[in-house]
Amino acid sequence: GNICCQFPIDLFFKEMKSNKHMTRKVIHSIKVGVALVFVSLLYLLDPLYKQVGENAMWAIMTVVVVFEFFAGATLSKGINRGIGTVLGGGLGCLAAIFAQAVGGVRKAIIVGITVFIFGAAATYTRQVPNVKKKFDYGAMIFILTFSLVVVSGLRAEQVLEIARDRLSTIAMGFAICLFISLLVFPIWASDELHDSLVARFEDLAVSLEGFSKEYFGNVNEKEKSSFNFSSKCKSVLHSKTKDESLVNFASWEPWHAKFGFCYPWGIYLKLGEDLRDLATTILSLKGCLKSPTQPSESNTCRQPVKEPCEAIVASLAWTLRELGESIKKMKKCGSEDTILPKLKTVRQDLSQIPGPSTFGTNDLERTDGLGLATFMYSMVEMVEKMEELAKHVEQLGQRGETVEEAKEIEIEMGYLPKQAAVMIGLLLLCSNVISVPDTRVM
Amino acid sequence: GNICCQFPIDLFFKEMKSNKHMTRKVIHSIKVGVALVFVSLLYLLDPLYKQVGENAMWAIMTVVVVFEFFAGATLSKGINRGIGTVLGGGLGCLAAIFAQAVGGVRKAIIVGITVFIFGAAATYTRQVPNVKKKFDYGAMIFILTFSLVVVSGLRAEQVLEIARDRLSTIAMGFAICLFISLLVFPIWASDELHDSLVARFEDLAVSLEGFSKEYFGNVNEKEKSSFNFSSKCKSVLHSKTKDESLVNFASWEPWHAKFGFCYPWGIYLKLGEDLRDLATTILSLKGCLKSPTQPSESNTCRQPVKEPCEAIVASLAWTLRELGESIKKMKKCGSEDTILPKLKTVRQDLSQIPGPSTFGTNDLERTDGLGLATFMYSMVEMVEKMEELAKHVEQLGQRGETVEEAKEIEIEMGYLPKQAAVMIGLLLLCSNVISVPDTRVM
Repeated sequence: GNICCQFPIDLFFKEMKSNKHMTRKVIHSIKVGVALVFVSLLYLLDPLYKQVGENAMWAIMTVVVVFEFFAGATLSKGINRGIGTVLGGGLGCLAAIFAQAVGGVRKAIIVGITVFIFGAAATYTRQVPNVKKKFDYGAMIFILTFSLVVVSGLRAEQVLEIARDRLSTIAMGFAICLFISLLVFPIWASDELHDSLVARFEDLAVSLEGFSKEYFGNVNEKEKSSFNFSSKCKSVLHSKTKDESLVNFASWEPWHAKFGFCYPWGIYLKLGEDLRDLATTILSLKGCLKSPTQPSESNTCRQPVKEPCEAIVASLAWTLRELGESIKKMKKCGSEDTILPKLKTVRQDLSQIPGPSTFGTNDLERTDGLGLATFMYSMVEMVEKMEELAKHVEQLGQRGETVEEAKEIEIEMGYLPKQAAVMIGLLLLCSNVISVPDTRVM
Repeated sequence: GNICCQFPIDLFFKEMKSNKHMTRKVIHSIKVGVALVFVSLLYLLDPLYKQVGENAMWAIMTVVVVFEFFAGATLSKGINRGIGTVLGGGLGCLAAIFAQAVGGVRKAIIVGITVFIFGAAATYTRQVPNVKKKFDYGAMIFILTFSLVVVSGLRAEQVLEIARDRLSTIAMGFAICLFISLLVFPIWASDELHDSLVARFEDLAVSLEGFSKEYFGNVNEKEKSSFNFSSKCKSVLHSKTKDESLVNFASWEPWHAKFGFCYPWGIYLKLGEDLRDLATTILSLKGCLKSPTQPSESNTCRQPVKEPCEAIVASLAWTLRELGESIKKMKKCGSEDTILPKLKTVRQDLSQIPGPSTFGTNDLERTDGLGLATFMYSMVEMVEKMEELAKHVEQLGQRGETVEEAKEIEIEMGYLPKQAAVMIGLLLLCSNVISVPDTRVM
């Protein structure tokens, strides 16, 4: 086991000093280990093994395959697996019974044909974008269960029993996953989505400030900040895929303390889109930096507008931080009172800065003039985009407030009972599931 | 089966008229159906079933899980599954034998501890970015196989035989997948990557032309083209994740006719990055369109530069198409002879266009002036980026040419023999694998 062990241990100590991400990864790994040990008890303890027998295999398989990093992902995969198994098993039983009724050589032919038709149709369905996004795994499990049940229906006589036994062990595995994933140090996709969105506001503010420092400042700090500013913008720009999957997972996490039921995750997608637009604008500023570095006298163009521009950049960064903060605290940002007036002031300030006047014949001066014009124009655009952004944040705040009220009611009614109810539900699921093979034995 | 059937059939007829994508999806679905029927023969035919028995289940499972849309993805997943199974099975056997040697109650404790340690360690490894990208599935299968083998080693006496039988049925399933995925109407990730890259050049050229038409043209065509131009740019902008996975799959497709061995897929990533940079610039132009639509007299600023700007945009679009074409045909683009000089001319033309002179006190005029400056400055930037792009395309052309030469030699030596060799190899794999349980029976 040296390959598999040295590798993570090495990285483990490297990252150990640092961050929250690391801790979460370790917690997740330990949780998976614990879930595996629990599910192994089906084999290890004689009384349990007598009930489930070789089917315990399916419980182990379920734990390995279904246990994901985020609680929502585990839930989504488990439910997918459940639905896929039930549907596939049910249809498979019907097909197997039909084939058995026909009998003879035609039996095998019918089985072959149904496997082909259902396999191909379900595979096609898997490729439909909407199905692919949410139910890809379920469709795969459908194909798997259907084929297994139909085909083994030819040999085994008690198809129904096989299907029921496997289903009950799969449910056991899923129950263990749910229990450990949701109730022991849960890692919520909704938290991750929320935090990453808030962090992006800060990233954009830092990028914008970094850009202006570099544009008006001295050359010394150049390399470092330039690298940071564009890499942060790019990570914001490429956040789309991650956002979509997190929103998908978050929507599976209904009983999460902080967000409550029906939290408007769709608005997060909108906000993400707004931030990406903003990142595009900031990133396109990168071009303005390049051209006129060599002749330090070409500052003639930039220096006169340095102070007003820096003030505007500071205001824009302040706005971004304020919006991010209001999302972080999940309260109304009061955009009508503070943010929108501030942006209006910025707009006025912008129109009072004198435009670049030097479009001389000198190529460098001309380019720098165009660059400055681009910078100023981008600021105008950013103001517009931030007004849009503020509106969406306001929407979220309003929806958040209703959630807040709902939560207060909930707290009055007691939050603990809810968690307890979920827990009791899970325990019931476990016991129910374990009792299924029991009835069979009896 | 009405839910599962009506759904795809409906969509089937909707998309039927149109495109290549559709055909590929149908072909893939049929291939999966055929593979399932083939693997079902292990159950359906008595002589085969006598050899493999219940283990045929593992072959079906392998086909369902491993058969992916792209040939490279199937190969990658299959090899991952193979490695994961062998490693997990091997280590599992060792651990089981060790536990059996200890015996007694401690046996169960040792099994529990090893399952925990290996499960947690492998789960941690799965989260290391580089492992996640290429070997996530393999690590999962490792955990699965390890747990199953260790735990069932407690009950079954012949762990080694179980492991060997399962491995051989998995290999059978994989062989069927490979055979059908690679040799019957293969769908190559490398083709998809190549085509999508070429298409993006065209998309950007169209966007750029659409923008200039809208900027200088009449208002009528506005809505339609504006929508197209930014949506196409955005799809280019968000191509990163798809590119990375396609490059990963393409690198698993060594014996692909068109590209040959060791094709420089890394350069595709670079080109993708360049195109995304360019898309950022084009997308940031969107802002220039908005401001001055209402007063149609504000064209005072734009009309004087209309003709030279349109000529430049045409040159830039031509360059993009030329570069795309040279990638499509996989030959040197001759950038030193035609494209770089062309870009140089464009640069000169650009510096001869008079800069916008009106930064009047009128807010609208001023904004439009800044917008025009931004447009011109963006064109300067685009020229720079295209020079960079041309260099990378040139690199690809050079590498492509060596591949070309290699391929000519290959053709001289005969291409068919290579395909035949692969085919014979696969058949050998099949027969070898089938003979493994055979020896056990005897």
